[in-house]
Amino acid sequence: MSDERRSLLAEKTPFPDDLDERLRAQLTFLVEVDQLKTILRQSPLAAADRRENDAEHSWHLAMMVVVLAEHSDRPIDVGHTIQLVLLHDLVEIYAGDTPLYDSAAGAGQQEREVAAADELFGLLPPDQARRMRSLWDEFEERRTPEARFAKAMDRLQPLLLNWMARGGTWRTPGITADDVRSRKAVIGEASSSLWRAGKRLIDEGEARGWSRSGVPRP
Amino acid sequence: MSDERRSLLAEKTPFPDDLDERLRAQLTFLVEVDQLKTILRQSPLAAADRRENDAEHSWHLAMMVVVLAEHSDRPIDVGHTIQLVLLHDLVEIYAGDTPLYDSAAGAGQQEREVAAADELFGLLPPDQARRMRSLWDEFEERRTPEARFAKAMDRLQPLLLNWMARGGTWRTPGITADDVRSRKAVIGEASSSLWRAGKRLIDEGEARGWSRSGVPRP
Repeated sequence: MSDERRSLLAEKTPFPDDLDERLRAQLTFLVEVDQLKTILRQSPLAAADRRENDAEHSWHLAMMVVVLAEHSDRPIDVGHTIQLVLLHDLVEIYAGDTPLYDSAAGAGQQEREVAAADELFGLLPPDQARRMRSLWDEFEERRTPEARFAKAMDRLQPLLLNWMARGGTWRTPGITADDVRSRKAVIGEASSSLWRAGKRLIDEGEARGWSRSGVPRP
Repeated sequence: MSDERRSLLAEKTPFPDDLDERLRAQLTFLVEVDQLKTILRQSPLAAADRRENDAEHSWHLAMMVVVLAEHSDRPIDVGHTIQLVLLHDLVEIYAGDTPLYDSAAGAGQQEREVAAADELFGLLPPDQARRMRSLWDEFEERRTPEARFAKAMDRLQPLLLNWMARGGTWRTPGITADDVRSRKAVIGEASSSLWRAGKRLIDEGEARGWSRSGVPRP
């Protein structure tokens, strides 16, 4: 990310001067985050022949929380968990998407994302900027049951899309079914039943040749 | 909507037979709703030169609830309000989008949407189907402060996008600034401050020629 302050979307059509200052900051943020709709992920949609974007992904995770919350091994606050997934990818507006199976792109990711969080959440009134940052930190640190469940949804959703695509990003060059298993195992930190189902899909995908079987270990 | 049972997305790549029955129903629903990402609305994005889809729109409303809840004239449960906006457009997967400024398309809309709700929510286990239907009914009936605020977000979000586009759907043939005002007035049922700001944007847009001024009334 450049040090130079980038121009904001809201500056293209500035709001009238006489708008309340706090509301103006909120609307400026809400217009800026429209960019989440333009950040493409690797996952293919189940319903169309194109890749998914971050806003669609975030909405889908939120719906999954509503429907699957009962599978959490520990009780979770559904409304709070939904807020975690709604905003977990916002930093990608300034930091970009880092594909799960691209280790090189992962280098420097955390630093880029922290800088992006400072810049993006900083558009909000200070009390709200602090709250957003605290929610994002909670998601990243995975110390609460809500954050662990949110992370599990973030890993389970592309697994479902890859299943529907009969492979999808499981076919990434150099990636084996064991790599998929190790990156998805975090689902089991939140829900043993969902991880059992996830493993079943990965195993079956491997058996059908939708992912590469690893070299047999000696 | 046809009487004949349509095929489900999940039938394209059926889940393994040994998956738990309740979880299979939940995953079938969660794959089916991927179609929300393919339903185009009239609103132009602020961040790119294309129309918005329903999943992006629903995510954006949810973010608006998180940021703007303090503007509700009555206290609201944020988590509950978010759930209302997340699912408010799901029925459009089977019933299609009805543009706000298209009265002809509005005919028969309610009947189509109720049938769509029965079919789509019916994919879930019965207890969850009832809960989804109850949330959707709550949104439609606007009897709770949460539902009124959710509806206000549904009207304010495209207003922001139209402002950013310097007109957008305000330029729909035959539509005047007064038509925009009357369709957006529902924002005022939830938040006097947001409706004040919304009116300010509509007035300013009219003054700048981004919408048609109505014929002066006698």
